[in-house]
Amino acid sequence: MNWKTKVTEKQEQREAAIKAWGLSIPNDLVANKRNVKYLPNTSGILSRKELDITESSATIIVDKIRKLEWSAEEVLRAFVSRAVLAHQLTNPLTEVFFERGLYRARELDKIFKDTGKPVGPLHGLPISLKDTLHIKGLETTQGYAGWIGNVQNEDDSLVKILINAGAVLYCKTNVPQTLMSGECVNFVFGRTSSPWNTSLSAGGSSGGEGSLISLGGSPLGIGSDIAGSIRTPANFNGIYGLCPSTCRFPGHRANKLGGESFIKPVFGPLSRSVDGLEVYTRAILSARPWEVDHQVLRLPWNEVDYQEGLGRHHTLTFGFMRHDHVVLPDPPILRCIEEVRDKLQKSGHHVIDIAPFEGVELMSAMEKIFGATGAKDVREILAKSGEPLIKEVEFTTEDTALSTWEYKRAGVQLSILRQKYLEIVNNTSTETISGRPIDGIILPSGGHVAPPHGTMEYYTYEAISNALDWTCATFPVGFVNSDLDTKPKSFHPMSKYDERNHAKYSPEAYADAPVCLQLMGVQHSEEKVLGLLRTVEAALGRGPNYMA
Amino acid sequence: MNWKTKVTEKQEQREAAIKAWGLSIPNDLVANKRNVKYLPNTSGILSRKELDITESSATIIVDKIRKLEWSAEEVLRAFVSRAVLAHQLTNPLTEVFFERGLYRARELDKIFKDTGKPVGPLHGLPISLKDTLHIKGLETTQGYAGWIGNVQNEDDSLVKILINAGAVLYCKTNVPQTLMSGECVNFVFGRTSSPWNTSLSAGGSSGGEGSLISLGGSPLGIGSDIAGSIRTPANFNGIYGLCPSTCRFPGHRANKLGGESFIKPVFGPLSRSVDGLEVYTRAILSARPWEVDHQVLRLPWNEVDYQEGLGRHHTLTFGFMRHDHVVLPDPPILRCIEEVRDKLQKSGHHVIDIAPFEGVELMSAMEKIFGATGAKDVREILAKSGEPLIKEVEFTTEDTALSTWEYKRAGVQLSILRQKYLEIVNNTSTETISGRPIDGIILPSGGHVAPPHGTMEYYTYEAISNALDWTCATFPVGFVNSDLDTKPKSFHPMSKYDERNHAKYSPEAYADAPVCLQLMGVQHSEEKVLGLLRTVEAALGRGPNYMA
Repeated sequence: MNWKTKVTEKQEQREAAIKAWGLSIPNDLVANKRNVKYLPNTSGILSRKELDITESSATIIVDKIRKLEWSAEEVLRAFVSRAVLAHQLTNPLTEVFFERGLYRARELDKIFKDTGKPVGPLHGLPISLKDTLHIKGLETTQGYAGWIGNVQNEDDSLVKILINAGAVLYCKTNVPQTLMSGECVNFVFGRTSSPWNTSLSAGGSSGGEGSLISLGGSPLGIGSDIAGSIRTPANFNGIYGLCPSTCRFPGHRANKLGGESFIKPVFGPLSRSVDGLEVYTRAILSARPWEVDHQVLRLPWNEVDYQEGLGRHHTLTFGFMRHDHVVLPDPPILRCIEEVRDKLQKSGHHVIDIAPFEGVELMSAMEKIFGATGAKDVREILAKSGEPLIKEVEFTTEDTALSTWEYKRAGVQLSILRQKYLEIVNNTSTETISGRPIDGIILPSGGHVAPPHGTMEYYTYEAISNALDWTCATFPVGFVNSDLDTKPKSFHPMSKYDERNHAKYSPEAYADAPVCLQLMGVQHSEEKVLGLLRTVEAALGRGPNYMA
Repeated sequence: MNWKTKVTEKQEQREAAIKAWGLSIPNDLVANKRNVKYLPNTSGILSRKELDITESSATIIVDKIRKLEWSAEEVLRAFVSRAVLAHQLTNPLTEVFFERGLYRARELDKIFKDTGKPVGPLHGLPISLKDTLHIKGLETTQGYAGWIGNVQNEDDSLVKILINAGAVLYCKTNVPQTLMSGECVNFVFGRTSSPWNTSLSAGGSSGGEGSLISLGGSPLGIGSDIAGSIRTPANFNGIYGLCPSTCRFPGHRANKLGGESFIKPVFGPLSRSVDGLEVYTRAILSARPWEVDHQVLRLPWNEVDYQEGLGRHHTLTFGFMRHDHVVLPDPPILRCIEEVRDKLQKSGHHVIDIAPFEGVELMSAMEKIFGATGAKDVREILAKSGEPLIKEVEFTTEDTALSTWEYKRAGVQLSILRQKYLEIVNNTSTETISGRPIDGIILPSGGHVAPPHGTMEYYTYEAISNALDWTCATFPVGFVNSDLDTKPKSFHPMSKYDERNHAKYSPEAYADAPVCLQLMGVQHSEEKVLGLLRTVEAALGRGPNYMA
């Protein structure tokens, strides 16, 4: 069968499953609107209770189910309804299995009623999954026409743990073909947009998650990240995302197509609240994942580190890094950095400026490793189905291929950089109040905010933490403001990327786009980063269950 | 300069430094002796106090220095004297820097006198280092003629930590050229033997450590291991060795010559006592090595796991694995396995038999990774100096080279095996008393004991733990006994290796050779394995400071 015929069938199946739910926003409310972020709230389609549920953070949802205030079934129904509306607005969904989710939710309600006990820390919480994770009995298409019909025999280890912890799975979400792109588009499921401005990119590769969650269609989603793929979508959709260091969370298996690598992908959470990230992290680590997945290290939740991030043990010092010596972030991003810096300082925290990390050397080391086989895997998949490559993709020519010797040397080059930057952080101990290294680094999420579709180019800011295997979270701060963020008159570009980035900038091109920053800690500092995020949120005047 | 001239000069320097100490065993005591293990004790060269010191375990030495019963200087003098005698007997030393050691020992004594405080947990303990570790101002020849004169500018991170912890460094020890051999020989420093029978191999690649320590010339030595290189020498010299999982102990840098790899080398301790292994492990982990070496994970000492290994938390179950489906170990090894099994059972522990791991699949995956560049690094080093390859070496032809794609797939193959064996261990929980997976696996240290020089062939038993990245220790149990270990009359070989191994066996060929076994735990179970070793030692009737 021709790949286009398969795609048409697949799309029809998806549309039928969504249509069966019987909800949509009237066309006249949607037409000509670029900012659709609040349409699920304002269109009058969802009930008061459905809005209450879908505007609640993960902790509150889990808590209310435990108190029998909400049933798992009604929680799921609310999120499914909202996910259906979200899909109409920005196209985030791929696999749709609401009925299966409802069956599980009812089962959980029954178990709770019969035993008086929740099955685990995520009892009843709906969770959406990026379409790279395998669920038994469902396809993992991952945006490839050639993979339509690719029904899986087994749940990934992460999926097993989520189910055992009480999660309710109900949908998978869109990705860029090949995953190696900041633009969420493929020939099977089409293009996903940011709800803040549908002419802007939802980011990649976990773009479906970013857009769905931002619209309230899921309280917690699982993405994966090897060069910003959790944090770019969090950034472009104005939500929170946590990219853990590798080998602490299960589920790496799904991404082994290109072979083992010196830079590994990692699964992590996206959510409208810090709460969502924390609920996920605590739940997975409490499940002793190292006993089921050989790639997971024996690193249980470390409460001391978390408390340290909350500032309970010493005066915190935040290091601010404004650029990467390659691209100066656009005006709204620089403005938001200063705002966060001021607010942290006013809240009694210590802030220092740190020398920018060298974007060129970090990306050069990474790109060697990413391009080592000349994207042999991707080219083979496409050749098999006959579908073309999307044009927004990176690393797909044979030109980047390395010999094994060069590849192994590239690994050493990366290792040398990891040592270098660890020492740079350690050397900040002379500048902090605690006499210890800085507690966290705040840096831009990119050179630009969510860009017009198809124009994403430079991704070093998001890839720094992957290059170093450090923990990194994205958090929303503000929005592009045409009054405050005017284009500067004089500009001295640091690079050709910088020149192009600057040329593309205008507050109008990025209208309504959210501005997010990144908060980075050293390797395996997930608890510390979550604690620091709480500290930053408090400084920004947000409560513990604040929803972006 | 011709490489042979350089070698002659280097050898003369070494001999002069040793001769300067002015001690040797009279030739008539050594002549015609194959078993020289006890000559340092019986030759009358060392004083009563020197024997007391050098027959004490690491804990006792550190303790007596703290109590001012012994000075660091006199402890070092005793070990240097004994190392000089050891060198005369089996040729373990490479770099000799006794004066530098004495300077440091006197400095430590003065600090202790002035401040009343030891500088760290290893205060005053002499430590020998395999000649792969870099010490500032000294050569790291590593058995290559081409590396003579290769003076280092910096201490390795592990060396820094040892020095900061109070260790006294005084010598480095021999290795096979290329490190990829079970026979400790090279053209610079010659061949090292087992003191139990000098016609037998000292093992590789940490063979100098194994032989020196067995003769009492060092209370604690640091070797490195990527396919048995700590445990083979421990085995052939009848001492203890611990090969940790990777990324928990610092010092990987020194081995990056061949590039980054999916199987990493790891440094670890060799000693005549379990005590020595434990002193090292506690000292390094208490130094927060992850703050200085980016490759080290944040895994501090875990006392709960250690206590578990001591049997304090539940009834222990030991899994026994007698062979690897490729080579049936020789009679003395099988006999010692049964002895240990019986004694553990008589001490109230639970023992079960487990299905042998598949040697073929594990070695096939490993050898692909080891041979991936066709030993390009080794061939380049040799080509530069002109020295030939030793004949006892493995993996040095271009024939094994893989493409980057094949290399990355080999990494996946390894990962699949790691998952498989983790699940096999987990599935033993139905057979244990605790209802948890088996606590440790006891397996042979090889198909044969220390072999006649140049005949080492099969090393899968030692490489299993590296393939899986599990923790594995070697411990001595007994000796080849010509009455008990007669050659069986009938034999059905499992493989060509098995056939050759069996053909070579006779109790006479391996006379006096020690028999060691391995104790293996899952990844990063160093504390558990140390605890289990204590349990096994107690079952064997040995006290906590027992010296092999």
